[in-house]
Amino acid sequence: MSIISKVAITGGTHGNELTGVHLLKHWRETPSEVTRKNFSTELHLTNPKANKANRRYLDQDLNRQFNIHDLNNSELTGYEHSRAKVINTLLGPKENPRVDFIIDLHTTTANMGMSLIFNTDDPLVVGMAFYVQDQMPGSTLFFDPVDRLEDTFLTSIARLNGFLIEVGAVPQGLLRADVYQATREATRHCLDYLELINQGISPVQPQVREGFRFIEKVKLPENEQGEITAMVHPNLQDQDYQPINPGDPLFMTLDGSTLIYEGDKVVYGAFINEAAYYDAHIGLSFMEKVQVNLKSDPVVG
Amino acid sequence: MSIISKVAITGGTHGNELTGVHLLKHWRETPSEVTRKNFSTELHLTNPKANKANRRYLDQDLNRQFNIHDLNNSELTGYEHSRAKVINTLLGPKENPRVDFIIDLHTTTANMGMSLIFNTDDPLVVGMAFYVQDQMPGSTLFFDPVDRLEDTFLTSIARLNGFLIEVGAVPQGLLRADVYQATREATRHCLDYLELINQGISPVQPQVREGFRFIEKVKLPENEQGEITAMVHPNLQDQDYQPINPGDPLFMTLDGSTLIYEGDKVVYGAFINEAAYYDAHIGLSFMEKVQVNLKSDPVVG
Repeated sequence: MSIISKVAITGGTHGNELTGVHLLKHWRETPSEVTRKNFSTELHLTNPKANKANRRYLDQDLNRQFNIHDLNNSELTGYEHSRAKVINTLLGPKENPRVDFIIDLHTTTANMGMSLIFNTDDPLVVGMAFYVQDQMPGSTLFFDPVDRLEDTFLTSIARLNGFLIEVGAVPQGLLRADVYQATREATRHCLDYLELINQGISPVQPQVREGFRFIEKVKLPENEQGEITAMVHPNLQDQDYQPINPGDPLFMTLDGSTLIYEGDKVVYGAFINEAAYYDAHIGLSFMEKVQVNLKSDPVVG
Repeated sequence: MSIISKVAITGGTHGNELTGVHLLKHWRETPSEVTRKNFSTELHLTNPKANKANRRYLDQDLNRQFNIHDLNNSELTGYEHSRAKVINTLLGPKENPRVDFIIDLHTTTANMGMSLIFNTDDPLVVGMAFYVQDQMPGSTLFFDPVDRLEDTFLTSIARLNGFLIEVGAVPQGLLRADVYQATREATRHCLDYLELINQGISPVQPQVREGFRFIEKVKLPENEQGEITAMVHPNLQDQDYQPINPGDPLFMTLDGSTLIYEGDKVVYGAFINEAAYYDAHIGLSFMEKVQVNLKSDPVVG
């Protein structure tokens, strides 16, 4: 009984995140590495034009264009609006998808290590996160549940949803071997997991683990001209997923003064100093710790 | 007796290296920080259009356009060709410069720490490098002597030449507070040094120190289609200025195999995995250790 028959691995959804782009090249040369007995694997470079330009995107972030309303809105005519519709036709369509599962490969300039990002509490997907974390114990669960049809991520157009592998720190526009190898390994575990599930074997059992959920993006301070007047504080730099307590340093102004976190509850940082968010003057994301619940056996249900 | 009367600090010569850009903004707000009694200090954002586009350059690398032949070649009509001519008019002209000294602020995605780059053995400039190194002991001398008129760097259009402050690792398109503060500190030492020289005080004496000189750029391996087939090896990543011995790992192919350094003499890496050189498929620079000689007292001569 195969419940998963078609898997897609996507890369270059952000054109200057080269790890996925080059893994796709490698797997096209060596398909056996991503082939499993009980499902087929497709490889898709999703934004080749942005990749060629070495930019995250040309007109708008491709990985925010996949909610059902935008996919069906013919007035959205930007380059990535159009790419999203094409990818939806190719892998979806979202309402009745051809592909069962999508693994989308991303990198970050933030020191987020191996981050496993998933937007559903479906046991198949949560089980994958737990399985990869078992194989790669330093990895972090980044969990932000949202209805699949409303979800803006590319992964949401697959029938059983999908999974983002997000690895850093690596600058945009280059490869780091450690990040490349970690992404390659995590993808292998994802495929192994799906193969086990197809064989009726659950490698994980119902349980609760710690994860992080997005609260809000935090802007860098600006002056009246809209220019940034501060940067991420050195104490916070590279401290992704560590607690930020009330009164902790958050930013350092251009003249070297410290601005503190003025909230009254502990939060956690992620995407700290992510280059992709700099044009919007976003310094980091605040996250909260959450319990991620694998509610039932991914096979038995 | 003031021998230096006009100093220029330049930033954003590479538009996506934001540290210099924001230091210039800070110093415009707080000019006292870069003001010294015995010379004037000018602040110049040299490639604002590339900075606005968050790109290193629009048409060609601005910091390769300042040799005397290119400056006088009216057939070079690209955007940065033109900017170079304008900057030469503003700060030079190279044959008879108005400005005495230029400090140009750069960053790198490579793990090069505080690198002091200078292209002349003139005691004034070598003395500055030694002085900054005395104040910031972890810094590295990056010395590549070339005739001032032939030199392609922006700094070469000043009468007494100039000095690049090159700090990393920091991704393109963002600020890291540690890199910002280190650059700010090094600039302060440069200005203090020039002020001492103007007062007839030599803070450094003739001596020889270790530095690194550029040998060649090393390309990443490519296939017949001109695509890269390997990346910087994990053992080499972040190991700028460390020895590379014959037989040491140099690259890791996309399938994970190791390619070794096949030369027969010890070299040293720099600009290892610099994002700016990725479009040209440059993996690193080979450097050699050299003796940097402060031939005479910078004041007495």
